[in-house]
Parts: sequence; C-alpha cells; structure tokens
Amino acid sequence: MNKSKLGDLLSSLKFNDQGLIPAIAQDSVKNDVLMMAWMNKESIEETFATGRVCYWSRSRQNLWKKGETSGQHQELVDFLIDCDRDTVLVKVKQHGVACHTGRRSCFYLSVSENGDTTETMSVEIDPKDLY
Amino acid sequence: MNKSKLGDLLSSLKFNDQGLIPAIAQDSVKNDVLMMAWMNKESIEETFATGRVCYWSRSRQNLWKKGETSGQHQELVDFLIDCDRDTVLVKVKQHGVACHTGRRSCFYLSVSENGDTTETMSVEIDPKDLY
Repeated sequence: MNKSKLGDLLSSLKFNDQGLIPAIAQDSVKNDVLMMAWMNKESIEETFATGRVCYWSRSRQNLWKKGETSGQHQELVDFLIDCDRDTVLVKVKQHGVACHTGRRSCFYLSVSENGDTTETMSVEIDPKDLY
Repeated sequence: MNKSKLGDLLSSLKFNDQGLIPAIAQDSVKNDVLMMAWMNKESIEETFATGRVCYWSRSRQNLWKKGETSGQHQELVDFLIDCDRDTVLVKVKQHGVACHTGRRSCFYLSVSENGDTTETMSVEIDPKDLY
C-alpha cells in the first residue's frame, strides 16, 4: 500500500484518546475468534507492510509483532473495518496458537447461566515452549 | 444467576477506567463476527437476567438493550471471557441484522493490500424500517 492510500486509511479510522483502536483476530478458516488486542497507526502500517499482524502492547508500550518471540504468528488474510470505523477485524491464518496460555484462542472460559465458569479448550502447546 | 455468583463474575472481570469492558458479538451458527460494543456491570447483569444481550451505549450513556427499538435483538447462546479477563465474547442468535446500516454485520468494509476499500455485504433491511 502506498503512503497516500495508507494515510487515507489511517485518517479515516477513529482512534481513541490514546491513539488506539480495538482489533479482533478471527481465524480465516475455522472462523473462531482468537483474541482481541489494540492497534495504533504504526502497527497497522507494519501489518500491511509485512502481511503479518502487528498490535500495540499497552503493557509494554511498544509494537507487538505477534509471534516474533513465540513463533505463533498471524498471517493477514483480510482487514475489515466496521460501520463506525472505530474497530478492526483481522481475518488471519493463525500459525500455532493465539493465546499465551498455549490454547488456540484466548476465549476459552465459558460462563454458564448459573454463573459457573468452565474451560472449553485444552492447552495445545506448553507455555514454557512458547516464551 | 444468583447475586453471589454474579458478584464473583463481575469482580473477576477487568473493566477499564470508565467501568467498561469490550464485548464482541459472534453469530453462534454462522460464526461471523457481528459487532463490537461495550458492557458495564449493569449490562452484564441485564444480559444474564434476560438472556438477551445488553450493552452500554457510550454515546447515549445508558443501557443499550440491543434490538429494543429496532427489533433486531441478540439471544445469548454463550458468554465467554478471555485469558486476561478484560474482553467478553458473546455468541448469539442474531434476530435480523446486527448493523444499524441494515447489514448483517458491522464489519462489511474490507481494505485490500493496495488500500482500496470495498463493501462485502449488501443492505438486507432498509435502515428506515429499523429506526
């Protein structure tokens, strides 16, 4: 994407007062929601430049090239924005697992009507092997 | 859910400094991501009490019982929380369409590698018939 088009895209998006926009990652094949994180302008630029999804880490306050340390990267398949232009949905090819716990998705805790919480996914990769 | 269990759930979640948590809605059958909005404690309580998804409207600053005006409500099928307990994923039975534009999902704008934006969904219900 050339600089002009990128500039148009970035200026069309509504970032919050910290310059961030929520980004949902969904597996492009299985369609399960893998995680939700945040992007800033730089991470969107990096995502398009590399074809690999890059977030902004609020805790570390730096670019979070997903999978750079763990190897569990996300290949960009589709980049969608919502009607209000204040949320991003990236469809990805997930290499390995998305969750730092070694589970496929971060959304593995299900709360039933009576309030009980159960784990719906098992650990696929030992977190010790990820970090 | 009894008050004690609800209290446990709410106190286990990480709300932001406005008392809100992001909530992603996903169709429980087709698995497409429909929208992202925000919940506060009261809207989570309302969601479990009624079995219909309720958000918090940041623009109107009140409870947003999805579909109350438009009829396009979301029946709660599963309530999932992520590993950090700071994001909610509701799997829903979507009655009608999720987007205020009359499209099935809010994520209908796709940005290609070269920066062009295309609409991937058509309007199913005229917004004039929704509001």
